[in-house]
Amino acid sequence: MPETRDPLSAFYSVIPAGGIGSRLWPLSRADAPKFLHDLTGTGSSLLRTTWDRLVPLSGEQRIMVVTGRAHRAAVEKELPDLADRNVVLESEPKDSSAAIGLAAAILARREPDVIVGSFAADHVIGDQRAFKRAVVEAVAAADAGYISTIGITPSEPAIGFGYIHCGPPLAIEGAPSALAVDSFVEKPDLETAERYVASGDYLWNGGMFISRADVLLDQLGETNPVLREGIDRLADAWDTPERGAVVDQVWPTLPKIAIDYTVAEPAAAAGRLAVIPGYFDWDDVGDFAALAKLHSSGRKSDLAILGENARVLADASSGVVVSQSGRLISLIGVNDIVVVDTPDALLVTTSANAQRVKSVVDALKVSGRDDVL
Amino acid sequence: MPETRDPLSAFYSVIPAGGIGSRLWPLSRADAPKFLHDLTGTGSSLLRTTWDRLVPLSGEQRIMVVTGRAHRAAVEKELPDLADRNVVLESEPKDSSAAIGLAAAILARREPDVIVGSFAADHVIGDQRAFKRAVVEAVAAADAGYISTIGITPSEPAIGFGYIHCGPPLAIEGAPSALAVDSFVEKPDLETAERYVASGDYLWNGGMFISRADVLLDQLGETNPVLREGIDRLADAWDTPERGAVVDQVWPTLPKIAIDYTVAEPAAAAGRLAVIPGYFDWDDVGDFAALAKLHSSGRKSDLAILGENARVLADASSGVVVSQSGRLISLIGVNDIVVVDTPDALLVTTSANAQRVKSVVDALKVSGRDDVL
Repeated sequence: MPETRDPLSAFYSVIPAGGIGSRLWPLSRADAPKFLHDLTGTGSSLLRTTWDRLVPLSGEQRIMVVTGRAHRAAVEKELPDLADRNVVLESEPKDSSAAIGLAAAILARREPDVIVGSFAADHVIGDQRAFKRAVVEAVAAADAGYISTIGITPSEPAIGFGYIHCGPPLAIEGAPSALAVDSFVEKPDLETAERYVASGDYLWNGGMFISRADVLLDQLGETNPVLREGIDRLADAWDTPERGAVVDQVWPTLPKIAIDYTVAEPAAAAGRLAVIPGYFDWDDVGDFAALAKLHSSGRKSDLAILGENARVLADASSGVVVSQSGRLISLIGVNDIVVVDTPDALLVTTSANAQRVKSVVDALKVSGRDDVL
Repeated sequence: MPETRDPLSAFYSVIPAGGIGSRLWPLSRADAPKFLHDLTGTGSSLLRTTWDRLVPLSGEQRIMVVTGRAHRAAVEKELPDLADRNVVLESEPKDSSAAIGLAAAILARREPDVIVGSFAADHVIGDQRAFKRAVVEAVAAADAGYISTIGITPSEPAIGFGYIHCGPPLAIEGAPSALAVDSFVEKPDLETAERYVASGDYLWNGGMFISRADVLLDQLGETNPVLREGIDRLADAWDTPERGAVVDQVWPTLPKIAIDYTVAEPAAAAGRLAVIPGYFDWDDVGDFAALAKLHSSGRKSDLAILGENARVLADASSGVVVSQSGRLISLIGVNDIVVVDTPDALLVTTSANAQRVKSVVDALKVSGRDDVL
């Protein structure tokens, strides 16, 4: 009888820490992206919380962070135990396929049978033990050759998330709850979302992908050979003196595309995708409505207040206040309000308009007001 | 035939510049009261605009300002032509009867047949010529022995103002439009206000009183002998070396009461009051709803922006923004909103809640946060 290894011993966590979180402007900025903020009121940034969640799974020596050059110092400050060899710096943003694909390719060259799992730097997860249980199953499914993902059991018919349409059970050893994935579906309208949730066949797509590195790269190469070739050139040079020159040459040529399109959807279509249902609270805190909800425990009448030393005087008001300026903030008779008070920019909107914040950021870009972006 | 004098030659303007304007917090503060602000966007403070409106009537040597000691420097900066002898400083606020009564008593000692007219430092008046015409008639009525007031012809059934119920014409020489005053009525409800305006018998009480100083003081003394006595002691000492000592002794003992109760209402009841209808736009700009209305020309969809160097980016929003901080202010999908952004305090409310701003100020007082009051 051959010796069996614990698949988890081959597991490596990857944290793509890229997006600014434009819908959380003016809290999130180019130089202070969402993942560097404490949105949960715990005193830890989302990045740090993500790290802390992954350490029990892969150990702190096996967590790689892919981030922009501008954020290197901030990331290293948040994660003092992050190893130098586990920092991958992007010269410019190239979306998730490049970030995760390159991490997988670098790790595969260092450790051919590595299993990589990618977890966004700026999501909020409630029950850490339930998360761990799901990842352990996902790693087992990856070890069996699947590209696996963790789907979150919906707590409501959310219209801000994508959904995973689940297929039949897969009967994978070590992953008893793994299901086939029928398809990924984009953010639905409310009626569709209600139908999804009522059916019990749909999970939220949390954007977590766990796979053997070679399997992930084969899938990516099948869908986008140009990207695969660029990633391979970068990875071949990565741990050599050529890295800088090759990055300068290749990085600008990388196609900019989300991993959903290069890996998740094609793998689902080919029957190579497994989903592990995750039984934990999860949120991508994509906008201020989500932030308000996160802090209100779902009660509409609550006023959530974020920010150290926040001084808020509220009368008959609900919603969320983010205070970064230290000023006294008074609210009178405003409901579902969103007030974000920073030293150089103020936002006043409502939860219902939270998605439109990005359009302000776009308008500021167009008008060249980069000083507040 | 006796020589007839022009009553206007005896006219002296008095500007009580006292109230902070708590319902305009955090724009109005103890150290920056409403009358020192440019609420009209003309570049002049309300006090300066009041001065400029009175100069053509009484001349700049005949305008007296009654204000708090703390505001002396700011008032003199706004009104460089204000004569020293025309500055009356209050050691503490004692409401309008003391302020106007003392001014009248000081002026009566200097000039026994003086006619005084008191005009609030923080009101907005549209048509200056129509204002002047009304004051000229009011001065003529005062010269004939009446206590006269100017009532503003209502442009709408406002519930934020008091009303004057007019009686029959008085046929006073030089004041052809003067009417008797039946009574003063407090701020009505909307239904009552609509009835008032429809009847044509009611005018808004703009709080302007014009009278011979001795007539005013007699009326005041009849109603409140204690106050009259205090005022007389102060006025007797005012232009002497004893002023300081007498002020220290008497000022704290002055009853605190509005001139409406000591002069206007009792004079009306006694048939001594004449009202001149004023055909001009008028507003006391008592709260942010009034401020928004002043700048929106009545259109509900407008967003009024006040403040030098205001940087506002608004999408589908209406109401009023007061910017004093220089920060970028973004509004998305908020209607009838009131945003007042100052360096140390921010207010977010709605026009409908504008009257409740005072309660915030009261709460701040109670909690000892005088730093932002």
